Amino acid sequence: MGRPRRPLLDRERITTTALEIVDELGEFSVPQIAKRLGVQTASVYHHVDGRDGIVELLRERVAAAIDDAAFDQEPWDAAMAAWARSYRAAFAAHPRAIPLLTTSPVRAPQVLGQYERAVGRLLDAGFALPDVMPVIIALENIVLGSALDMAAPEAMWELADETATPRLARALGAATEGRTDQAFELALTGYLSHVRGLLESGQL
Amino acid sequence: MGRPRRPLLDRERITTTALEIVDELGEFSVPQIAKRLGVQTASVYHHVDGRDGIVELLRERVAAAIDDAAFDQEPWDAAMAAWARSYRAAFAAHPRAIPLLTTSPVRAPQVLGQYERAVGRLLDAGFALPDVMPVIIALENIVLGSALDMAAPEAMWELADETATPRLARALGAATEGRTDQAFELALTGYLSHVRGLLESGQL
Repeated sequence: MGRPRRPLLDRERITTTALEIVDELGEFSVPQIAKRLGVQTASVYHHVDGRDGIVELLRERVAAAIDDAAFDQEPWDAAMAAWARSYRAAFAAHPRAIPLLTTSPVRAPQVLGQYERAVGRLLDAGFALPDVMPVIIALENIVLGSALDMAAPEAMWELADETATPRLARALGAATEGRTDQAFELALTGYLSHVRGLLESGQL
Repeated sequence: MGRPRRPLLDRERITTTALEIVDELGEFSVPQIAKRLGVQTASVYHHVDGRDGIVELLRERVAAAIDDAAFDQEPWDAAMAAWARSYRAAFAAHPRAIPLLTTSPVRAPQVLGQYERAVGRLLDAGFALPDVMPVIIALENIVLGSALDMAAPEAMWELADETATPRLARALGAATEGRTDQAFELALTGYLSHVRGLLESGQL
């Protein structure tokens, strides 16, 4: 028998397994990963920089689906919108990872590189240094809130008694299947056009 | 010995215990609740409408902190902004409940009542019926994304090597401690002023 083509354990397989567990349970533990891979917990630790290191591997994996070319678009608000759309799609694929990733500090170099590019586009556009992080965080609020919404059931409101909430019943009946995307585009374009207006009028 | 003043088990205690577990773990199971309360799992089921019923009790408990008086404000966009601010504070107190609540259909009558009021304000303001739910969902994207952000560590970006991301380092250095609130207000007021503009110009 020859050697297996792939090593039993490597960072890629640990990341894949951790992401599977997070997709199912919203959390992971190192012993859970070891059990699924049929190895000792200590062996997993041998390959990664502790549990936090696995969180960063997850962040890199999820963020790898974000299109870096978004930042090449012109003007700056088109670049931010393209980044936001791609960022939303990447995180909507793993909604249960969102709280895990948003409550751990960002250390992954490739992800920090994305923020560097976002900051650069905003500075080049003329935003003042103290406003840059709030402008980015506001965009992320919209992106991550909408990514969570993409994981919501199609029938998100269940009215046992329509007469109790008649106007909600009518509004739900009139909303289309595309309401999630429509809401995201409304928030995204509304926010960006407002920020552009503040920038152009010297208020930001 | 007299009877205990409170029954060993009631819906309120089940809700409190479920919320404690969700705050710690991001999830709950009925056996976990039973164990903490020192009762049989079947006894818990006797008081609630299954696991989904407990999710709705959690939703009611979290949403009870939302200020209903927000909807009395004038004009409509001030009402929506006040609702959004109060909604954000209520959910930021239980960030780990957010994914649980956003992936289960809303059935709690009091929470449906809040949506009824929001829908009513938007219809009265002149929004077309098919646009009402997207306008509300977009607001919720901002609210829930920001509530998650409020649970983020103060030092959310950890740069091991500042020379790799020099502009991000400067932007982080210039951002104030209030960046979370500043970002939320930027997204909220930006979105609402955009939507008001679309409404007033007949585009929405």
